[in-house]
Amino acid sequence: MAKQFETIALIGIGLIGSSIAREIKDKGLAGSVTVSTRSEATLKRAQDLNLGDRYTTSAAEAVRDADLVIVSVPVGASGAVAAEIAAHLKPGAIVTDVGSTKGSVIAQMAPHMPQGVHFIPGHPIAGTEYSGPDAGFIGLFKGRWCILTPLPDTDEAAKARLRTFWETLGSMVDDMDPEHHDKVLAIVSHLPHIIAYNIVGTADDLEAVTESEVIKYSASGFRDFTRLAASDPTMWRDVCLHNKDAILEMLARFSEDLAYLQRAIRWGDGDKLFDLFTRTRAIRRSIVQAGQDTDMADFGRHAMDQK
Amino acid sequence: MAKQFETIALIGIGLIGSSIAREIKDKGLAGSVTVSTRSEATLKRAQDLNLGDRYTTSAAEAVRDADLVIVSVPVGASGAVAAEIAAHLKPGAIVTDVGSTKGSVIAQMAPHMPQGVHFIPGHPIAGTEYSGPDAGFIGLFKGRWCILTPLPDTDEAAKARLRTFWETLGSMVDDMDPEHHDKVLAIVSHLPHIIAYNIVGTADDLEAVTESEVIKYSASGFRDFTRLAASDPTMWRDVCLHNKDAILEMLARFSEDLAYLQRAIRWGDGDKLFDLFTRTRAIRRSIVQAGQDTDMADFGRHAMDQK
Repeated sequence: MAKQFETIALIGIGLIGSSIAREIKDKGLAGSVTVSTRSEATLKRAQDLNLGDRYTTSAAEAVRDADLVIVSVPVGASGAVAAEIAAHLKPGAIVTDVGSTKGSVIAQMAPHMPQGVHFIPGHPIAGTEYSGPDAGFIGLFKGRWCILTPLPDTDEAAKARLRTFWETLGSMVDDMDPEHHDKVLAIVSHLPHIIAYNIVGTADDLEAVTESEVIKYSASGFRDFTRLAASDPTMWRDVCLHNKDAILEMLARFSEDLAYLQRAIRWGDGDKLFDLFTRTRAIRRSIVQAGQDTDMADFGRHAMDQK
Repeated sequence: MAKQFETIALIGIGLIGSSIAREIKDKGLAGSVTVSTRSEATLKRAQDLNLGDRYTTSAAEAVRDADLVIVSVPVGASGAVAAEIAAHLKPGAIVTDVGSTKGSVIAQMAPHMPQGVHFIPGHPIAGTEYSGPDAGFIGLFKGRWCILTPLPDTDEAAKARLRTFWETLGSMVDDMDPEHHDKVLAIVSHLPHIIAYNIVGTADDLEAVTESEVIKYSASGFRDFTRLAASDPTMWRDVCLHNKDAILEMLARFSEDLAYLQRAIRWGDGDKLFDLFTRTRAIRRSIVQAGQDTDMADFGRHAMDQK
């Protein structure tokens, strides 16, 4: 494929950053890739994995001649990165990020962005429970949505270039208002992770049921939650702290609905239970039809076992 | 393999019953298999799938000459099945079930069981989100635990035969007190399903976020929950109604823990969040080490996509 940018700087080289790095190299999308991360050990690992062309622990140095800067750090670190790189950005450069909260990232980064630099926040809806530069892989973004939350004065040409970049990685791209993004993600991503962390914590704390029992019999449903609850703690702490309002709103609704369900169980109201349990089946079907999940039983776990 | 029973009667031929039928045939464990279900359409389908040797809508007729009777119906129907078959059971026959609640099944079935029949309740910890005779497959029980909750006066020889049967299907077998079983399953299976149904319902009810957005962006966590929430509504309604006390206890604990987490989010207590999010990772690791889940990222979804 054709080169899209002369120099790309990747600030942060975890699951997302390193997947982007692999895609850029695989598809020849940049003349040169500079990888930057604060941790020397992680930078060394990125170098061993041959993820870029230049390596530095200084984000400021990394962005100096970059046409595209992709910030892939826990959202709580976005402000510090923006402050560090601001004075060193090349005029005309595109700066984007991959954070799971957009209102907070914009509030942290936008004030630092100099005139003539195109800051276009973004969020690829993709990931796994693993983290770090080894966790990335080609294909992570394929068939997944990437949401851009451009600011009102965004340059259309710059946005089109960023859109093309994500499409080349296999994504479908949507524009969205940052505040709406944060509400949508609160229900489709943040709440599921918080609930998963919570139930795994509850199970871990029981006195009547041992941890070894929880582990042995986890195939009956529990193990599904442990996957989400194995996600990167730093990333998820930051998401909770930086999308507080939307998360608290969704948590309140979830708890209200759970109280209703709990009451139906207590009073033996089978019809209410049956109605809810039937309605939710249709949503699963729609997700499979939309190509956003496999229709194989149990996520294809048994099919994998057979091989 | 060697024949273990002359005649086996399968009462109920859904995901579990039909998987057992396929295993019996595949491994030659019975001289003859009688399939029984109340629905004529389902019975016809079982016959088309060649799951047994004889077919009848009458459970009473099915058990007449059976040495092993396996009841695989929603737990709310156990009592009616027991009442129907009681007078027709062969002396010395083993009667077992596969229900996800044991206290209630014992209360419903045990009073009907005649002298000389060995009633040994059981529960294979296996399943998928699909249901019905087409959903069953060989290998469903492989590497999974099967819990037996024998009554105090259980015949050891009969129990050993049932144990061997499940082991031949690839299961590891544990004995457990029924009350303890119900507590364990409440946390590892019932609560996860209830939570999954609940969050999918909450998402479906939002005004600020459309259903199409929930579906499009579901790969960010939500889709995992929709799998459990696509499980058989009748089965899960019955589980909720028949393991009420243990489920309400676990729900109370879960809600209490969620309130604590919610408070940490509201007050920006990052350390509390980080501590919980770190602790839960270890449980995932233990489950993978115990062979109860894959270590492939995202349950191997991406690996499946590549093929």
